Amino acid sequence: MKVCVVGCGAIGSLFAAHLARLNDVEVHAYDVSAAHVDAINKNGLRISGAADFTARFHATIRAQEIPRCDYGIVATKSTHTRGAIEQARNIFDDRSAVCSVQNGVGNEEIIAEHVKQVIRGTTFPAGHIIAPGHVGYDIAGSTWIGPFEPSGVPMRLVNELAEMLNRSGMKTVALQDARGAQWSKLIFNASTNPVGALTGLHHGAATFFEPTGALFDALIDEGTAVARALGIDLHDDPKKMVRFAANAPGKHKASMLQDVLANRPTEVDFMNGAIVRMGEKAGVPTPLNRAMWALVKGLEHFWTNP
Amino acid sequence: MKVCVVGCGAIGSLFAAHLARLNDVEVHAYDVSAAHVDAINKNGLRISGAADFTARFHATIRAQEIPRCDYGIVATKSTHTRGAIEQARNIFDDRSAVCSVQNGVGNEEIIAEHVKQVIRGTTFPAGHIIAPGHVGYDIAGSTWIGPFEPSGVPMRLVNELAEMLNRSGMKTVALQDARGAQWSKLIFNASTNPVGALTGLHHGAATFFEPTGALFDALIDEGTAVARALGIDLHDDPKKMVRFAANAPGKHKASMLQDVLANRPTEVDFMNGAIVRMGEKAGVPTPLNRAMWALVKGLEHFWTNP
Repeated sequence: MKVCVVGCGAIGSLFAAHLARLNDVEVHAYDVSAAHVDAINKNGLRISGAADFTARFHATIRAQEIPRCDYGIVATKSTHTRGAIEQARNIFDDRSAVCSVQNGVGNEEIIAEHVKQVIRGTTFPAGHIIAPGHVGYDIAGSTWIGPFEPSGVPMRLVNELAEMLNRSGMKTVALQDARGAQWSKLIFNASTNPVGALTGLHHGAATFFEPTGALFDALIDEGTAVARALGIDLHDDPKKMVRFAANAPGKHKASMLQDVLANRPTEVDFMNGAIVRMGEKAGVPTPLNRAMWALVKGLEHFWTNP
Repeated sequence: MKVCVVGCGAIGSLFAAHLARLNDVEVHAYDVSAAHVDAINKNGLRISGAADFTARFHATIRAQEIPRCDYGIVATKSTHTRGAIEQARNIFDDRSAVCSVQNGVGNEEIIAEHVKQVIRGTTFPAGHIIAPGHVGYDIAGSTWIGPFEPSGVPMRLVNELAEMLNRSGMKTVALQDARGAQWSKLIFNASTNPVGALTGLHHGAATFFEPTGALFDALIDEGTAVARALGIDLHDDPKKMVRFAANAPGKHKASMLQDVLANRPTEVDFMNGAIVRMGEKAGVPTPLNRAMWALVKGLEHFWTNP
């Protein structure tokens, strides 16, 4: 079985390294960071934190060097989905199934423009790049996957991918309808990420500081109202997810805060922006999500208008 | 006539320098910055920008060196009102009148704990300290003053202070009820200041960037609803004030952004915090002002919890 990880940042690296430990799986990784790719090919990828091991697999900055794969796992930032899948499209054919494990909503739609069989996914583990070839595994957690409804991917492929990931040590749940899991994570992210990005606070500090903790709850209430209006049953309670993550060891910085610290475009359009757009569609007001979206867009605007 | 400026930062310096140009007014300034005080005493205070001149007056870090004054102008950050007026209380007696020209609401209440006759005031000019003894006058504008209602200060003293300020070149309007002017500025500040502080954008950039410009408007709508519920007639339209300030030359950074860049406690409790508290009293929901308050408090919390 061949698997290609598209986007080998912190999350993609966790998937690639775990899968590479399976004897019956050949892992390829496509990423734009030459330094990370070179380090992986030279010394393997080192994981530390919630798990500690080093795994060897093939990484490259040239997608055309990767053979046809049975499965794809897309783990780029949402802002890079389109560019990455355009580069990687020839790795997959009509029998392949490509799964998004990205933040936010809207990525499967983009992948499906180029790949026939698409799997909807959402993942809870969190990490960060410590150095090229070395990823910190900050928070362990499950992954939920299910068919991307319009693509007609059979449940058999969803189950096969879940089975493979579970064997690799990445706990994965196959669901007939993964929208509830995806929206639970979306609502979690749309509260914790902008607040972290705008204040600098790591996840635990923002949760336990009363003003920002209350803002988390208010943002979650808005997102939950939108999900309800869309007929989506949340798989998990985002407020419980916030507290669970806050009790993880270490000082995990939300991915959007990591983006801001690096002056990288954030995923806010796929998080709070998506909740605002879906809220408009469903007739549910989302003033707080719109405010977070506006502030983070303002922050990005500042980098080019200091 | 003797006038003491309490808090000789950017705004206090503008008042002190203008008043010092009048032959019939003796100006004293109390400030905590020894460098600024020393520079003023040595070379005078230089103003550049909307006006260009240098004025000489007495400045000190020891309030007990200042003689009894007829008028006080308090221009500290709201967070320092209590400490400053406790130090300066003996400069004023029961015939003196002390006027706040500070941001936010709640300062007159604190001053009135120590001084009998208090004048409510709000001022639109904006500036920043360029160097000790040198203040940039970024945006010119009017000052509105009126009796602080519970203190029973006679209108005669309000008029006398306004007349003196007008002669000095600081355009000032005496009002029987200055609450409408103060709330106009409060609502203006509570929209522009946190957005500037959280994004880094200078006032013009934040106004003309569509997402943050729309957030200004939404925050203003909330504040206006609270003022209406309290029976306060706004003296000016805060949305027009935003556009007026945005068209001023230069890239003025909101005072809260200046505070954040210097890791100084902000005035958010006297701005968005005050609107939230007044909204609760009046039964008007203020979710966006509460969100801005929470984010800025989170930012301050971060400085001690990195």
